Amino acid sequence: MIETYRPLPGTLVRSVETPCLLLDLNALEKNFNTIARTYEGTICKMRAHAKNHKSPIIAKKQIQAGGTVGGVCAAKVSEAEVMVNGGIDNVLITNQIVTQDKIGRLCKLAKKADIMVAADDPRNIKDISEAAVTHGASIGIIIEVDTSMGRGGIRDSSLGVELAELAASLPGITFRGIMSHQTLPGKPDPETREIEGRGYIQKCLETKTAIEAVGIPVDIVSSGETWTYDIASLIPGVTEVQGGTYALMSHAYDYMDAFSIAAKIMSTVISTPSETVAIGDVGSRALGGVLPEIQDYPGVYVETVSDHQVILRSEGKMPLKIGDTFLLISGQQDIMVNRWDYFVTLRDGIVEGILDIEARGCVN
Amino acid sequence: MIETYRPLPGTLVRSVETPCLLLDLNALEKNFNTIARTYEGTICKMRAHAKNHKSPIIAKKQIQAGGTVGGVCAAKVSEAEVMVNGGIDNVLITNQIVTQDKIGRLCKLAKKADIMVAADDPRNIKDISEAAVTHGASIGIIIEVDTSMGRGGIRDSSLGVELAELAASLPGITFRGIMSHQTLPGKPDPETREIEGRGYIQKCLETKTAIEAVGIPVDIVSSGETWTYDIASLIPGVTEVQGGTYALMSHAYDYMDAFSIAAKIMSTVISTPSETVAIGDVGSRALGGVLPEIQDYPGVYVETVSDHQVILRSEGKMPLKIGDTFLLISGQQDIMVNRWDYFVTLRDGIVEGILDIEARGCVN
Repeated sequence: MIETYRPLPGTLVRSVETPCLLLDLNALEKNFNTIARTYEGTICKMRAHAKNHKSPIIAKKQIQAGGTVGGVCAAKVSEAEVMVNGGIDNVLITNQIVTQDKIGRLCKLAKKADIMVAADDPRNIKDISEAAVTHGASIGIIIEVDTSMGRGGIRDSSLGVELAELAASLPGITFRGIMSHQTLPGKPDPETREIEGRGYIQKCLETKTAIEAVGIPVDIVSSGETWTYDIASLIPGVTEVQGGTYALMSHAYDYMDAFSIAAKIMSTVISTPSETVAIGDVGSRALGGVLPEIQDYPGVYVETVSDHQVILRSEGKMPLKIGDTFLLISGQQDIMVNRWDYFVTLRDGIVEGILDIEARGCVN
Repeated sequence: MIETYRPLPGTLVRSVETPCLLLDLNALEKNFNTIARTYEGTICKMRAHAKNHKSPIIAKKQIQAGGTVGGVCAAKVSEAEVMVNGGIDNVLITNQIVTQDKIGRLCKLAKKADIMVAADDPRNIKDISEAAVTHGASIGIIIEVDTSMGRGGIRDSSLGVELAELAASLPGITFRGIMSHQTLPGKPDPETREIEGRGYIQKCLETKTAIEAVGIPVDIVSSGETWTYDIASLIPGVTEVQGGTYALMSHAYDYMDAFSIAAKIMSTVISTPSETVAIGDVGSRALGGVLPEIQDYPGVYVETVSDHQVILRSEGKMPLKIGDTFLLISGQQDIMVNRWDYFVTLRDGIVEGILDIEARGCVN
């Protein structure tokens, strides 16, 4: 067995061996409190997406802070298993689950917790129903509506009605509602966010209206995400928001002042081959997604990320020397977090402990 | 504890639950035998880069096949620890190691195996020497020469001479030689490979000549990589080639007929939202690097990879339907492999077993 490096509680952040993934608990709690405050007294609540942090312990903190539906989203069956195992009793899987083995695992899980799954195909709904009957389980069906992503999800309301009727008629499953997910590139101003966000969510609500028109109640409308957290909750009919990014935040969303960056990567300079270049000890093995940004060094930027190194370039003379540490902020935290086994948690710059990323590598 | 899905030996490949990472043992052995044949009777041998497959078991197979120096390269101290722990007794770490903690781990490791590390800075060489003396260890120093990458490594021979003199004069360390690494984008024809490869390696050899001119022997010249495996070995003075990719191969290198793709990702279609689109159940959580390519479906290509899904687009009507499986080939296997906990090993399309990716997540 290899000894794994894990800093002890009480260690000063600057003494933590790099590369490491730091989690600032003050920032995390600020983000959770923003949601609790925003959703105080509203019908619509947050259903945090666990794929962002991949930790049932953080998910429970998120729920305890308030403003949530009391459950989470998960991207994969294995991720849902980790969440249920960690004490979360209500999970919406936001993808289609189509193979025998994984539908079986879904059924097994549904005997321990309230499990819902996204669907967009009649054969798949029939398969889930049959398996649920065999296992004596009950699974909630959420019809996915594609509003902008070009991925899974129905494209027109009539198919939504057909699937809702099917889900409502078959044994072992219950029709629970609809969901959509959408993204907006760049750093939009509040007005753009509002116009675009309302437009996408409205498209999702059209399917709700069509389903209710044939007499089937739609209990859940799960739409909206971090960038519409304050818009979705104002739209009548939306019952929950699937916010992932807001927990750890990322530089791609840092136009949203209500949240702070909670997870950062700390790296050490290992080489300064020229006056304007510094090489850090962390690469794409531990990063991922869009290029990260460096904090606290104006004029220094991330030029590229290779397998095991980050290459920093400065406009003037490089202020960093060999042995110096610096912080990187990911543009896509959920992809980045998946590269790590644990967070080093910090309170006021001092290590509080180690938090295992229990759903890391849950690809199945 | 979560039950993890692991297929049993004897399972047919088409029945393995997806997404999964398949390792074709016939292809792997073909690749290793190509190297054994190429380096039969040459002075220059292969030092396989373990970052490609991250498995000491595969590294041992690689060495046993022949044509190697009997050791491996590793990218990180933690990766080297996994290799030594798995029975490899000779490791060259191809990066600079500059922090106290990691230099200490290097010394500890050097008491169990022959450990060499790349260096490009006098202060760093002094630090390694001091730590080695304290620990009673001996560490080999390899001066890194930058020939084309713009990353770590010295840029001119005179600094190489200065560092070699320093390494040769200090206690606890031994000057062993020099190394370089270079890449060539695209799919070059053999002539371009030969011209470019020779040019880069020659630049590295200039430093060897300069160091030898001051009377210091240069035992190791570790240069070349998969795309120059058959060129580097013909250049007098090169003692070893750092080939990583050739083990698993990738679509980015598939112009090299002597090797076959040994690692592939199998995925299942979970949604077919339009006539020309199919969504697969694997995304960037388990892929990474350049876009993968799909096998066996001409006219179908990978349009994009989202967090948890791959979006396939077909020129005509999509031949894949929900529940169908398909194979993806990574363009950058080492980044991709790092997303997985194990390979499912195959012999003639039948599962032989599970091979843990022991150095997965070795970021430290």
